[in-house]
Amino acid sequence: MQQSFSIVIHGGAGAITQKNTSADLQQAYTQGLQQALNAAYAILANNGAAIQAVKTAVMALEDNVLFNAGRGAVFTKKGIHELDAAIMNGATLQAGAVAGVRNVRNPVELAEQIMLYSGHVFLSGQGAIDFAMKQGIALAHDDYFFSQYRYDQWIAIRDSEFYQLDHKADTLVGRDKKLGTVGAVACDMHGNIAAATSTGGMTNKKYGRIGDSPIIGCGTYANNQTCAISCTGHGEIFIRAVAAYDVSCLMEYKGYTLQQAMDETVKHKLTNLSGDGGMIGVDAKGNTAWAFNTLGMYRAKRSSNGIYEIAMFT
Amino acid sequence: MQQSFSIVIHGGAGAITQKNTSADLQQAYTQGLQQALNAAYAILANNGAAIQAVKTAVMALEDNVLFNAGRGAVFTKKGIHELDAAIMNGATLQAGAVAGVRNVRNPVELAEQIMLYSGHVFLSGQGAIDFAMKQGIALAHDDYFFSQYRYDQWIAIRDSEFYQLDHKADTLVGRDKKLGTVGAVACDMHGNIAAATSTGGMTNKKYGRIGDSPIIGCGTYANNQTCAISCTGHGEIFIRAVAAYDVSCLMEYKGYTLQQAMDETVKHKLTNLSGDGGMIGVDAKGNTAWAFNTLGMYRAKRSSNGIYEIAMFT
Repeated sequence: MQQSFSIVIHGGAGAITQKNTSADLQQAYTQGLQQALNAAYAILANNGAAIQAVKTAVMALEDNVLFNAGRGAVFTKKGIHELDAAIMNGATLQAGAVAGVRNVRNPVELAEQIMLYSGHVFLSGQGAIDFAMKQGIALAHDDYFFSQYRYDQWIAIRDSEFYQLDHKADTLVGRDKKLGTVGAVACDMHGNIAAATSTGGMTNKKYGRIGDSPIIGCGTYANNQTCAISCTGHGEIFIRAVAAYDVSCLMEYKGYTLQQAMDETVKHKLTNLSGDGGMIGVDAKGNTAWAFNTLGMYRAKRSSNGIYEIAMFT
Repeated sequence: MQQSFSIVIHGGAGAITQKNTSADLQQAYTQGLQQALNAAYAILANNGAAIQAVKTAVMALEDNVLFNAGRGAVFTKKGIHELDAAIMNGATLQAGAVAGVRNVRNPVELAEQIMLYSGHVFLSGQGAIDFAMKQGIALAHDDYFFSQYRYDQWIAIRDSEFYQLDHKADTLVGRDKKLGTVGAVACDMHGNIAAATSTGGMTNKKYGRIGDSPIIGCGTYANNQTCAISCTGHGEIFIRAVAAYDVSCLMEYKGYTLQQAMDETVKHKLTNLSGDGGMIGVDAKGNTAWAFNTLGMYRAKRSSNGIYEIAMFT
């Protein structure tokens, strides 16, 4: 019997409801998720590696201005874009992560280069940009990251001490309480799994704030023995809960299934800490799962055993 | 019966051997450890909180030029000092961490301010320095962080592509293969536990490299239900192994004792990944433990039930 393969992606969680999402927007999100999902699925169907599939999916979402990552990243307090991303290969436990970079078109691509060529796991700030330039990663001018919608979000709160998780504002896209991040997890034909996550963080963030997305074990984790996980939500709480690795440990040490473990971490541990958000996961048999404690999560999955689902509401 | 209280500290692990450590240096290290240990113990004996005890111990080690943290931090590729630290309160799961800050006299103090007052968990770079200034944290001129020994370490390799884990060089202090970081874990009279870690990272590090020390779950973790852990070693591997939280999960999900869990993580998981280093731990009953897979680790522990030990070799 051939190993089944699968891909799951997310584009953020939060108060995503039918009432607050116009038909046009529903269609735009659906299209964006579908495009990323199918690009990654094609790689898996063509005997490609899980690590390649998650990178491809995340790059597609980074390039889509609808999602808070790459091109669609929110503005910081200083009116710039500081991007975070991570990637992990479950076959080797290799990992790469980057925090607080500017002008990098696809932060997940930089995370992969860090994993493969830096001798390190986690680079940050100007140093990470230096490494990106050395590796010849595609850079982009500030204008590339400009969108009127993100700018308006920022203008509305920049003179305050407030910051907001993406999609938390009562504004054009999505209206209320959505926590912006994108991510992907995949299992390939060889039973290798991988995870990747990318984000622009919180609108009006300051002080070089780093959330959970680039933190291995918190926002991103992959291990062939257990699971590949990508999270989205209130990053501070996901860090304190070491959310992604908690799922892995529940599987490794308590024998939970992927879905049981994710439900335990999201619906009990994170909820008890008032940690809003969600996560997606795969295991090395190609099983897929998602869990969230918010009203919705942009999400999609597709697997070789016939699963094909795109959803955003509960 | 009164709850027993305890403190454990470390000043780095590596190829620390009697042969490579002069009598004078042994005495200097012993004194440095003793001073930090006793300052923290006095707080606990006076009904102080674990979080206060670990901060006090780490600040004492940061102020001691022998250890690679705070004042004794190594030089980066650019000839500066970039400091990382984290602190976590096991009673509340609150955490604070900072990466890549310059000119902050006691990075662990900044980590605590981040935990208490920033609304975030993890700040980095210039933004973290801005926050330090806002909070009135003590800053120090570059000269404060200068030591001839660290400078010579750096000069020897700055024009190469090499970087080194602290104490890895065949130089004055310690000679060979020591992995520099300082840390403390404590259990107070009320059964609350805490952990803190601080480091200058690797000599000649570049690209804004972040190791495991400031990563919650990797180099630092505390949870009253399980353990408080502070790690030292090859940070990249400790991140990939999510080392500190792995110990916690082995206790929570498999019922291991503190020492069993730490041995499993250090002697099996980390060793299998060629991850040199060690860790210290306490649980909420005041039990203490350390584990390392290197030739030595600067370490000390003291508890209200009579344990008092300062050691550096195997």
